[in-house]
Amino acid sequence: MDITVAVDAMGGDHGAHITVPAVLRFLDRHPEVNVVLVGLPDAIESELRARKASVGPRLRIHPASEIVTMDEAPQSALKNKKDSSMRVAINLVKSGEANACVSAGNTGALMATARFVLKTIEGVERPAIAKMMPTASGGETCVLDLGANVDCTPEQLTQFGIMGASLVAAVHQKDRPTVGLLNIGSEEIKGNESVKAAAEMLRASKLNFHGNVEGNELFTGKVDVIVADGFTGNVALKTTEGLAKMLAEFLREEFTRTWWTRFLAVLAWPVLSHFKKRVDPRRYNGASLLGLKGIVVKSHGGADQMAFYWALKQAVTEAQSGVIQRITEQVREQLADLAATPVPAAQ
Amino acid sequence: MDITVAVDAMGGDHGAHITVPAVLRFLDRHPEVNVVLVGLPDAIESELRARKASVGPRLRIHPASEIVTMDEAPQSALKNKKDSSMRVAINLVKSGEANACVSAGNTGALMATARFVLKTIEGVERPAIAKMMPTASGGETCVLDLGANVDCTPEQLTQFGIMGASLVAAVHQKDRPTVGLLNIGSEEIKGNESVKAAAEMLRASKLNFHGNVEGNELFTGKVDVIVADGFTGNVALKTTEGLAKMLAEFLREEFTRTWWTRFLAVLAWPVLSHFKKRVDPRRYNGASLLGLKGIVVKSHGGADQMAFYWALKQAVTEAQSGVIQRITEQVREQLADLAATPVPAAQ
Repeated sequence: MDITVAVDAMGGDHGAHITVPAVLRFLDRHPEVNVVLVGLPDAIESELRARKASVGPRLRIHPASEIVTMDEAPQSALKNKKDSSMRVAINLVKSGEANACVSAGNTGALMATARFVLKTIEGVERPAIAKMMPTASGGETCVLDLGANVDCTPEQLTQFGIMGASLVAAVHQKDRPTVGLLNIGSEEIKGNESVKAAAEMLRASKLNFHGNVEGNELFTGKVDVIVADGFTGNVALKTTEGLAKMLAEFLREEFTRTWWTRFLAVLAWPVLSHFKKRVDPRRYNGASLLGLKGIVVKSHGGADQMAFYWALKQAVTEAQSGVIQRITEQVREQLADLAATPVPAAQ
Repeated sequence: MDITVAVDAMGGDHGAHITVPAVLRFLDRHPEVNVVLVGLPDAIESELRARKASVGPRLRIHPASEIVTMDEAPQSALKNKKDSSMRVAINLVKSGEANACVSAGNTGALMATARFVLKTIEGVERPAIAKMMPTASGGETCVLDLGANVDCTPEQLTQFGIMGASLVAAVHQKDRPTVGLLNIGSEEIKGNESVKAAAEMLRASKLNFHGNVEGNELFTGKVDVIVADGFTGNVALKTTEGLAKMLAEFLREEFTRTWWTRFLAVLAWPVLSHFKKRVDPRRYNGASLLGLKGIVVKSHGGADQMAFYWALKQAVTEAQSGVIQRITEQVREQLADLAATPVPAAQ
């Protein structure tokens, strides 16, 4: 199936300078994909020219005269920038001209605009941000929410479970993905009231609920989906980024200490680079805004070409696997089911 | 100054088999320290004999007939095990026979017992669990709470800031340690109500408050103390443990793939082992139960000899630097100060 992706060409810390070459590389390797570059035509064309590329049947430019800045307040972007590259890219999904859109822009503005333009799927109270994380077993675990919703009700956490499981089911062709609830395990009081009630509700649902998981189980592959409120999820994600960066820097320091260690680094280059590749966060770039009536993928703002390439890949995979339809069906069925089942009160 | 440490010899996954040899090694290297091993005399003596060691002026055994199991409910341990090794070790701190105690036992039971026996410092609503984490700049950041308090009021978070800063000031001889509040930065709604109000209160305090920090800043050394509620702090800590374990495993896999990579691993052994040493979590074992009228250090339940050694070190350092007195003074002064300063309402 041919897929068209609308790309917010101006979003992110580097704008068209990163998005355009990433798109060109992606089109080269994915003959079934078409791209609409949305943004200031001059900026986009100059990047195309610099790379001896031009528009054609698989690559169009759709003009948009404004840019949402990285620190702009979401409501201001929503009200005052109706012709922003971000908004117009989302509009193309709404109108059906594109099957998905990708933006490296301001997360808050992207979520607010996507919610306003595309609307949420029937039954979904709040969209969530989901991301695949690598696991020790060589697989991936989908974690959500990563920051869209600071305080979450048990109902919302349950909906995140349904959405995350639908995403994994569609993208990884898993029939009944396992779902875990991020909690703290070893202390006196296990979890706050909302998490306790969410556990009861998830247990009563038709999801393949596996119970509580702790922070260290983000990487064991014990479950396919991990549900958290956006505050906790965001802290866990950023902690991961910070630690990985520190460890990579320490490893680099150790291998550049003397001429002998530098020589060893050259000898061990294939080993070290294979290790680096396995844990390269760029390969996991591309967070999904789930719960909307359309596919929106958020790239890291500081993404380089390779990272943005992977965000494009995520959007295409979601479009090809019918994620939106799956979430819509699952939310409808499972919420009807939950409404019919009395949920035991949390203890 | 001579320091006496009461050691819960029976606590942890391995009990006396780990605690006794760790203590013997520690006594060897720290002539200013005395230890009281608390627990079943038979078990302790048999470990001492196996290592050709015996009691003496610097090493005593104090009998305790019960053991708190790792999964025992805190309230049950508190009520039913009044002669447990954990409780008796804490009693020795209370009576002044020991300057600090160390236990690798059940965290919930340790906190409940320590609170009951030692009581909290005047003005401290809830004790917190604090831990030093390594940073990229080669220093350490103190993070609290790591799981004792799931839901925290702004007042409690502010008290954690005062306690953490007092710990760092005493142990690292830093005059005005910088304090950050763990929050999420880039999203629409920055933090929940409690965190927003805590930020206002911390700003109004005499602490050297640096504002919000995100998860990735746990490892940059940007601030000396990071304050979080126990739920978020626990997830961040466990996430760190999980990721570090996965990366270590990946690195091991890459270096044991073929005979050539194994040969490289041998050549690069000094480099890899220096890297491993820098990030070895055992060196950071030993969490402090802060806010109590006595020093209680919690070792990881699965600690090996080296890890338990570092928990002993943490307890001795705290005892030598007068942490309890510092916290007591700072809490009294700063809370009086805060009461006199009108705190602006959170926006």
